[in-house]
Order: sequence, then structure tokens, then C-alpha cells
Amino acid sequence: MTAPTNHVLAHKPLKVALLGGGNVGAQVARILLDDADSLAARTGARFELLGIAVRNLDAPRTAPLPRELLTTDAEALVKEADLVIELLGGLEPARSLIQTAIAHGASVVSGNKALLAADGATLYQQADAAGVQLSYEAAVAGAIPILRPIRDSLAGDQITRVLGIVNGTTNYILDQMDSTGADFATALAEAQRLGYAEADPTADVEGHDAAAKAAILASLSFHTRFALENVHCEGISSITAADIAAAKEAGLVIKLLAIAEKFPAKDGEEGGVSVRVHPTLLPREHPLAAVHGAFNAVFVEAEYAGELMFYGQGAGGTPTASAVLGDLVSAARRIVLGGPGRTETTTGEVAALGIEAVQTSYCIGLTVADQPGVLAQIAQLFAGQGVSIETIRQTIHRDSVDQEDYAELRIVTHRALESALAGTVEQIRQLPVTREITSVLRVEGI
Amino acid sequence: MTAPTNHVLAHKPLKVALLGGGNVGAQVARILLDDADSLAARTGARFELLGIAVRNLDAPRTAPLPRELLTTDAEALVKEADLVIELLGGLEPARSLIQTAIAHGASVVSGNKALLAADGATLYQQADAAGVQLSYEAAVAGAIPILRPIRDSLAGDQITRVLGIVNGTTNYILDQMDSTGADFATALAEAQRLGYAEADPTADVEGHDAAAKAAILASLSFHTRFALENVHCEGISSITAADIAAAKEAGLVIKLLAIAEKFPAKDGEEGGVSVRVHPTLLPREHPLAAVHGAFNAVFVEAEYAGELMFYGQGAGGTPTASAVLGDLVSAARRIVLGGPGRTETTTGEVAALGIEAVQTSYCIGLTVADQPGVLAQIAQLFAGQGVSIETIRQTIHRDSVDQEDYAELRIVTHRALESALAGTVEQIRQLPVTREITSVLRVEGI
Repeated sequence: MTAPTNHVLAHKPLKVALLGGGNVGAQVARILLDDADSLAARTGARFELLGIAVRNLDAPRTAPLPRELLTTDAEALVKEADLVIELLGGLEPARSLIQTAIAHGASVVSGNKALLAADGATLYQQADAAGVQLSYEAAVAGAIPILRPIRDSLAGDQITRVLGIVNGTTNYILDQMDSTGADFATALAEAQRLGYAEADPTADVEGHDAAAKAAILASLSFHTRFALENVHCEGISSITAADIAAAKEAGLVIKLLAIAEKFPAKDGEEGGVSVRVHPTLLPREHPLAAVHGAFNAVFVEAEYAGELMFYGQGAGGTPTASAVLGDLVSAARRIVLGGPGRTETTTGEVAALGIEAVQTSYCIGLTVADQPGVLAQIAQLFAGQGVSIETIRQTIHRDSVDQEDYAELRIVTHRALESALAGTVEQIRQLPVTREITSVLRVEGI
Repeated sequence: MTAPTNHVLAHKPLKVALLGGGNVGAQVARILLDDADSLAARTGARFELLGIAVRNLDAPRTAPLPRELLTTDAEALVKEADLVIELLGGLEPARSLIQTAIAHGASVVSGNKALLAADGATLYQQADAAGVQLSYEAAVAGAIPILRPIRDSLAGDQITRVLGIVNGTTNYILDQMDSTGADFATALAEAQRLGYAEADPTADVEGHDAAAKAAILASLSFHTRFALENVHCEGISSITAADIAAAKEAGLVIKLLAIAEKFPAKDGEEGGVSVRVHPTLLPREHPLAAVHGAFNAVFVEAEYAGELMFYGQGAGGTPTASAVLGDLVSAARRIVLGGPGRTETTTGEVAALGIEAVQTSYCIGLTVADQPGVLAQIAQLFAGQGVSIETIRQTIHRDSVDQEDYAELRIVTHRALESALAGTVEQIRQLPVTREITSVLRVEGI
């Protein structure tokens, strides 16, 4: 207890409405009550928790909530508050309640990545016009302070690329596959057993959760609003144990990355920002490769700062509550000190690039008939599309059914345009000698 | 160029005085001039670089400075400015110039760790009273946004421990020793050749630079002002190739860490914060162990957020300039928007603990005569001081001079009180069977 309990506070208490009584909400409520004195000392005003809006007063809870604070009337609660914490998730009623809060002059702290990715631009404009604050550090990478550093600390720099491991479930699964050799289904089942993956894991494993976070990261990094529809999204459910093993052999590791990357205008082509989520090969020496289990990390490349990485817990009740409370104290300090809210800048009007405009390296795994001239034939297709090959690795296998030899190829390219790569892969697929394209993965960090 | 150059700015230009024309200053000046449009768009006002105060107009420069902006009259420059960037280093005239700036209503951005560690409390009070801002992200860990996350993002959490690699020179030297087996002198010479270490490396290798940063980190983390005299400081010049090799064999790595750690009150003993810099053994799986070369990283443990790490370049002209400009834009946004400056809270009055009150694990290397009963004798000394042993590793060697066998011992303890450990080591030193105490190192992260 570092705060003197008899600290004299000049400011009247600040009324807090908490929307949502789930895992994070319960921890936020507990900390608001348990640490009231030290929070007051840091803020300059006491927080008064008005109530906790829940859908059902009698629903079973993962963590206990003070019964006398529960209410089902979120609307009424919001109208009385100075500060509203929105932890409902989903689009409605979260959006309407946040708009009510803003209209009544309350600052809002939200952890709702889906809503912010969908409607962040509108909500931010409304908050700005009303002179209140909207903050949402908890929406991306849980406990990791990443949004504030991007918005404020790097405000005088030019971010060129952001690579984030922002979904703990998929990082846990890929990390398990990498360390134990398990296949996707086994690693997913283990993640479900340990509570890292939900019964319906679609939102995590197909990359939708990461895509919402990618949109938010891209918007802050490039001073332009990007929405979910600007994000190209591929999940990890098609990653095989063989992909992982091949990556390992090549000194690489597969991570699901949320990527926001700036491509400058060049040769008359329009520049812009690519926002994408896909399984990505990374060298094992890359700082992101050392992010294990359900941890999150965001790697930022900026023109002046160089390479930065932010690492920590991306989910969980208490870690996420830490981010919510950081935003709450910051918003409250601003109320206590007076003056307008801290604003974001969306001065840029950077184009959102489609995936076809991305330039990166690729690793293509395929099997072909073991015939003379096949390699030359394939190399020519790459050359024809202007895709330059860095390495080809060939292994000869014998088919257990037809007893014919065939060649397994792993081709790593230099940086090339996605559309050219896609064209090459399509041409290879149609070659009579091609048996199967087993994987096409993008490579970063080399 | 993301900013529209014809952006209409409501606010008048902000006059900037730059004090110091060294490596960082030159980069700050260059970016202020080159990126003027995008900085204006993000800030809401243009920066007008009034002048650059230097000691000698004709001194040779590592980077070119616009000659017409140079002046030797820092005082006059400061009095005209809305924002002052102080990159002089050292106590005077930096302190007086910052005080002049504050008295004239200018906000200050400083990268001066020595001054902030010495006089941060006074300067911050003066800035607060004048309603201006004093920010200093560049003073700790160069480009890495660490102070703002600690101050704002973790404002609702309770930090329990901070472990920082905050000196690139010593990290480079230790990393070289670890990867090549070189001894300290060789690695230092290599660091000097590459420009990572200065001709007189004392401030870096003896830990003084890290100590100033430790005081700043501790002050922000524990809401209490700690000064340089509160920091226990040991450097790395006594670390031998044998220490490194022994650590490696045990799966550990030696890093020079700046540590700020809270010890709660217990058993009638007063709690407090220990601020210290010393070579530290870390498990190789610890995230800080993967910080190589001249990179910096700060590992933060907080009650709710859990473990966080911030990684990036700790020095260099452009990276440090990035941190300076982030502070500058943030301070300028506040001026443009109106309202008081962002304040720190120093509500806590946590005691600074001496090194004797620290509890940690230790690794003691010593050589003893190879006689029966020696191990028991030594184990008894540990037990007598209440220090519990985790592992003992014994290797028998033959002395090349007297041809007698002797035993080399590596003893790792459980967490114990520094004073008890020091007492034990002193008793062991006086045992007739003891040949030499070769190293006593603290261990963290196990």
C-alpha cells in the first residue's frame, strides 16, 4: 500500500459505470474496490463504481461480483457516469451504449476490438467532437502497452511496418506443433483442454480476432482509419505438421502474424498500406520467434527508432484489467486536470492495398514427377513472372502406392509481388508434371 | 509523405530551441527540418526551429548542422522558445537553462539522464508549478518507449519489479564474451574499435550510466523520487571469461541489469524499494537473455499485467532522436489543445533499501582444499546464516605449481538476504581450507 489513505483530494469522486461482468470485468471491479486508495492517490480523485451492467443477474460467473452492484439497465447506468468501461464485446448494444456515454459527456474505456475495427472512425469522431476521451489499450494484445507508445511515443517518427503476434490461442497451437511435432488437430485439442482455445475456435484459428487487431494497429500506425474489410485474412487451420517440420529444418518458425506494412509509391505505382493476417515464416533468430505459448508481442519498425518490440500477456482477466485500468486512470487524470481529451491524428489518407499488391518473400512446397528438365521448367515459370528464386531444395521420395519416384521441392523466393507469385503458382499447378502444391507461405524478417 | 502540405493549421507556429549539437541534436534538427509538414499535421502546429545552441560554432561535427541556426547564446535562445530540447548532458549549464525555460513558460524535452537522476524531483516540481511539461523518454533506453508506458499505461497497476538492460556498451561486451569466449579486455577493445565504447569507458563499464537510468526507472515505477545516491552500483570490469563459461555451462547468461524491486514489509521489517545495478545471472530462456549486441530491453513485472518486455535500440543519433521527437509532439499537442501538462504522481513515500536488505539468489564460485569434510563445513556456514543452498557443483583440479588436488565449487542459493549472504561469504573466506573466492554473482529470473 504505497498511497496514504488520508490523502486529501481536491476533486469530487468520479462515477464509473462498468458494462460487462465477464472475466475481465470481474477483475476490473475487484481492483477498483481493492485498490481504491492507491488509485485515488494516483488519479487525484476517487473512483466510485456505480454499478456493473450484466445481461442476467443470476448467470453463473467465473469470478465473484458484488451482487448489490449488478444491474440489467446498462442505459440508465451509463447516463449517470463520468467514465464508462465497456467490456461487452460485439457490436450491439456496445456501440449504442458508448454513443450514449459520449452524448452524456462521459469518457469511455473499451476493450472491444470487433467494434473498434468496425466503427472506430465514427466513434472516435464523436468522442472528439464531444471533447471526451475514447481509449482502448485492452483491445489489442491485452496487457501490453502498445497503442499508447505507437500513438504518443512514436508520434515524431515514421512507422514503416508492424508485425504482431496478437492472438494467444494460435501462438499456443503453433508453438505446440513446433515443440512437440503434433499436428494441428492435436495441438488445438490440447489448447482447448487448457482453456487457451474456445469450444468453437473459429474466430481465433481463422485469424478473425487477429484481423480486428491488425485494423486497429494499422490505423494508429499510419494515421489513417483502416476497417476490417481492408484486412486480408488467412488462418492456421491448414498448417500441417509437415509444414512445421520443413520450416524447422530451414531454421524458420511459423507464426500467425498481424501485419501492417507501408509500401511507398514506386515506378508510377500507387503506394499504400497492406493490412493482413496470415501464417508467416520467420527466422528463428527473429525476436518474435522467441515468443512462446499464449504470449503476445508486437514488433514495430520505424524510420528513426529502428526495431522495437513489445512483449507480454495478450489475454486473461487480470492482465487485460491492467490495460483497462491504465486507460481509466489516464482518462480520469485528464478530467481532474481539466483540458480537452488527448486526440489521435488521422491526418494521413493512405490507400489500403489489396493483398495482390504486397511484396514479400515466399516459400512454396510442392511435389513433382521425377523427370529430367522439370526443375528448369519450373524455374522458367518463376522467371517469366519476374519472381526471382533464392533457394531450391529438392528431395526424392518413392510413392508407396505406384512405386514411382517423385521430387519434393521447397522454393524460397526473393521479395516479389504477391500477384506475380500467385500467377506463378497457378501456372505450376497446371503443369502436367506437378503432383501437388503442398504449401505456399509468406516469409518475413529475412 | 502522408501529410497534406496545405493542411490548414489553426495554431500559430511553435518556437523550438535546441540545446546541443551532438549526434542526437543533429538528427533532431534534421528531422525537424525534413519532416516539417508531417510533424505539423500530427501536432496541429508547425515547429519553427529558432536556433541550435552549441559551445563552439566551429567545432568539428559528426553530422552537419545548418550554420545559420547555430548560436553560442543558449540563454537568449531559451527565453524566446515555446519548447526547449535539452541535449547538453551533464549538470550545468543544462540545469540552469531548463530552469530558465520553465520560468519563461516553455515546456522542456530532455535526454539528460545524469541531471534527471540528480535533480529530477526539483525540476519536476518546478515544471508542475509553472504548468509546463517536462518529458525525458530519451534519457532511458534511447528509442524504446518505456517511461510513458510505465507512467500512463501501468498507472492502474502495481509494478513489483523492473529489470533493465539499459546500457548498450556493457551488453555488447558481455554478449561478445559469451559468444566468443573472449576476456573482458579483448571484448572492451573490440567495442571501442566499433564505436560502442568510448575511449574512457568508465561510466559505462562501472555501471554509472545504468545507475542514473535505474534511478529514473525506479522513480516512475514506484511513484517515489529515488536519486543516484539510492542506487547500489557494481560494474562488469571484474567479470572473467571463466565466470562467463561457468554461467554458460549452468544454462545461464551474465547481463548487467538495472534493477528496481519492491520488497513488501514482512515480519516487522520495513518494506521498501531496492534500486541497484550489478552483473546478474539469468536463465538462458529468460526473455532478457535473448537481448544481444548493443540492444536494450526493459522487463517489467506488475501485479496485474504480469510480465512485460520492451525492446529496442538504446542509443544512437536517430533512435534517440525518435524518442525526443515523440516527447516534442506530445508536449506540443498539449500546447495546441490547451489545458495543463500531464503530471506524474509521486504519491508514494517508499523507503529506498540498502543493498544489504535485498533478497535474491546467489551463485558463489570458490576453490577449496580437497579434504574430507570440507563440503560439510561450508554447508554449515550457509545454514548458520539461514542461507539455503539449491545446488552445489564440485570439480576436482590439480594445481600446476604444487601438484596438489583442490576442489572448485559453484554454489547456487535459494533466495536469501544479501546481508546473510555477505556474512556467509566472509566466514568462508576465513576458513583455512579456502583457497580463493572467485566470484559472487546474483541470480534473477529463476
